[in-house]
Amino acid sequence: MLSTNKPAPKSKITKIVNARLLLDHKIVKDSYLWFQDGKIIHPQNLFFDQHRDADEIIDAQGMMVVPGYMDIQINGGYGIDFADHEGSLDKIQKDVDTVAKGLLQYGCTAFCPTVVSSAPEVYNKVLPLLNKRKGDAKGGSEILGAHIEGPFISHEKKGAHNQEIFRTGKRGIDEFDEAYGPELKKGSEAVSIITLAPEIEGVTEVIPELANRGICVSIGHSAATIDVAENAVAKGATLITHLFNAMLPFHHRDPGMIGVLGAVDLPAPVDPARHPSASNTSPDRTKPDPRPFYGLIVDGVHVHPNSVRIAYYAHPKGCVLVTDALSALGLPKGLYTLGGRELEIDDNGAAYIKGTNTLAGSTISIDQSVRNFRQFTKCTVVEAIEAATLHPAQVLGISDRKGTLNPGGDADLLFLNDDLEIQRVFVYGEEVELTKNKK
Amino acid sequence: MLSTNKPAPKSKITKIVNARLLLDHKIVKDSYLWFQDGKIIHPQNLFFDQHRDADEIIDAQGMMVVPGYMDIQINGGYGIDFADHEGSLDKIQKDVDTVAKGLLQYGCTAFCPTVVSSAPEVYNKVLPLLNKRKGDAKGGSEILGAHIEGPFISHEKKGAHNQEIFRTGKRGIDEFDEAYGPELKKGSEAVSIITLAPEIEGVTEVIPELANRGICVSIGHSAATIDVAENAVAKGATLITHLFNAMLPFHHRDPGMIGVLGAVDLPAPVDPARHPSASNTSPDRTKPDPRPFYGLIVDGVHVHPNSVRIAYYAHPKGCVLVTDALSALGLPKGLYTLGGRELEIDDNGAAYIKGTNTLAGSTISIDQSVRNFRQFTKCTVVEAIEAATLHPAQVLGISDRKGTLNPGGDADLLFLNDDLEIQRVFVYGEEVELTKNKK
Repeated sequence: MLSTNKPAPKSKITKIVNARLLLDHKIVKDSYLWFQDGKIIHPQNLFFDQHRDADEIIDAQGMMVVPGYMDIQINGGYGIDFADHEGSLDKIQKDVDTVAKGLLQYGCTAFCPTVVSSAPEVYNKVLPLLNKRKGDAKGGSEILGAHIEGPFISHEKKGAHNQEIFRTGKRGIDEFDEAYGPELKKGSEAVSIITLAPEIEGVTEVIPELANRGICVSIGHSAATIDVAENAVAKGATLITHLFNAMLPFHHRDPGMIGVLGAVDLPAPVDPARHPSASNTSPDRTKPDPRPFYGLIVDGVHVHPNSVRIAYYAHPKGCVLVTDALSALGLPKGLYTLGGRELEIDDNGAAYIKGTNTLAGSTISIDQSVRNFRQFTKCTVVEAIEAATLHPAQVLGISDRKGTLNPGGDADLLFLNDDLEIQRVFVYGEEVELTKNKK
Repeated sequence: MLSTNKPAPKSKITKIVNARLLLDHKIVKDSYLWFQDGKIIHPQNLFFDQHRDADEIIDAQGMMVVPGYMDIQINGGYGIDFADHEGSLDKIQKDVDTVAKGLLQYGCTAFCPTVVSSAPEVYNKVLPLLNKRKGDAKGGSEILGAHIEGPFISHEKKGAHNQEIFRTGKRGIDEFDEAYGPELKKGSEAVSIITLAPEIEGVTEVIPELANRGICVSIGHSAATIDVAENAVAKGATLITHLFNAMLPFHHRDPGMIGVLGAVDLPAPVDPARHPSASNTSPDRTKPDPRPFYGLIVDGVHVHPNSVRIAYYAHPKGCVLVTDALSALGLPKGLYTLGGRELEIDDNGAAYIKGTNTLAGSTISIDQSVRNFRQFTKCTVVEAIEAATLHPAQVLGISDRKGTLNPGGDADLLFLNDDLEIQRVFVYGEEVELTKNKK
């Protein structure tokens, strides 16, 4: 009895040769990378199951090939602010697409569009357009769900947020559902991260419910003391929003939220897969680290390079590079807006609330962040890249498909020269046309 | 022609068996420790050159055997303050002996008696009694030369020092020689460490001359910004005095002296042997670390445990445990003096200037510091012990004879149980009679 099923049409198999691949925390020279249908594949399966070789060979010419960068905190770019709800849905959708496309030029193949504290009508209009969406070499960087920063945050540490719309959580999760609207109920499909201040009434108590929806709870824009911050982590917070900025300064007798990097007595993680891996700085060096991840803005202005280095070495596996980039990303210096407020960009690319010295975000790109980070910390190339690939993927619980070059993962790839400059970008195996001048 | 030289009388050879030895940064079970004439010896030399076995065997009963602890910052104990110059030289000498003897009970087999800011007549009287002096199981802990803290320090960060006698260095090294008297010219024979504030006029410029005399220059009691602090290190400072205390708080945009732990662009050390070893946090992970050592008071009051941990992991090979202990060490709580000022000791053993909340030092012992440190950082036993043995020996440039169990070194030994409690103490191979209750 012969089978009458026809074989499915064969999709193209691509093999990258002559590359230095980032595999298993090492740069590996003598290996190839295979992908098919947008996924990295294991060549063994190919030979044994499909009896095939590659249809296409890409010569990497000795360059490094690494996973695409991910940015879990970015407010916009190209003159667009994700919290801006003016105009038609079509117009807003087009704006989101513009940023998503632009980010590919920096090697950012996936991101969490970040919305600063807003009124319910803004969330209702904007959040549905920021749901998870697959990346595409022409369509733009993958959307991983929105990062909603505020409005359950501290007046004391408001940064550039509009404190008139800040809220408390005294009515528990209902208050959150009211604030953000129906999108919050979709969980991680719509909302990847919420930044909240654990000392605000009722907020810490809601953390487990948010985490249960698959949302990463991040503490930040907060005047929490060390005890309050540690308690929030014990309750399920797994990230600190832009460490050092918009929190109490590190005082050696109460190190505040920054001091969580030195915590030793946190309970074992509820979901170890969404915690940093063990390092030689972990309380137990053989188990996932109970400490949270922490975002770092490495433009050299928000955080002094020496502080970046101290934080990194205190908790290396928890470090996540974020740009916190504004609408001014990709544009010349001048005047821009964030959540309806006017901002000035100075010569260093730092953004201040107009007429003040309050920092409001950066105009740094994620690839520049990786290069700065390497320079500030003198870490290895692998360590620098993992802080923008593996670690953010772990934050979101998607390291099985993003953030590494492991078989089964999405073929989001960067070709880098030795100065970590972007030379080629692939999204789901399709090459992006780069318009920036390569070096 | 036969030699007519008679063999020298044979001195006793001791062999420790059944010990867990701290050797080469590891706890080693299957080895023995040999010593003779107060020095650790290599058994190979013994068998081949002397054709001998041990005269005495000590059964360590499975305990850890580690180098004696060293304390490079201790103001006194047992009611005695090293800056106290009242009374006859005989009386002061007797006081020094009392502290030196008492310290052996805590496993502190070598120390730098520390003298707070004082007038020239005090230094002239006191410093000659604090010159280097060999340790002795009956006579007391080894004196490694005085640590003179001030008076070239900051009014802003005076701590418990008497600011009326603070000085500047505007006349260079002459001003230092005038302040401290002829003992300073003896260099490390008399003075092991000077704590100074690099931002005080003329002070940074004097650092190379002090270092040339073999003295360790430590920066502290200072309001230095990061640039000033890094410059002092570039000039030859190799230690930070009680990190976090009596310095500017860590601010992420100017991390001050604390930020030196995150420095990456310091010049290569002038004397690599007096710098921390390379670690995976070093700017170059294959070379001695250009960053300085830093003292840490780990009573849990001076520095929050989480801050201890952050500092440690940022620069693990630079950490030096110090007690900064006062005259009240070894005595019950109550009222004591430091440099003529009244202090109150609270229930936690922390000392405050009477009627204020300014911390003035601790009443912690070095062995308790090691235990606290291990608990605060969750570091390994080896790491905890090296912060009180190898690292302080490196600070003073004497790691060839102190701080390890390497052959050729002084047989200053501690027997510890698994809780790191002192069970037996040896000084130059002679056992100390312990009067404290062992656990």
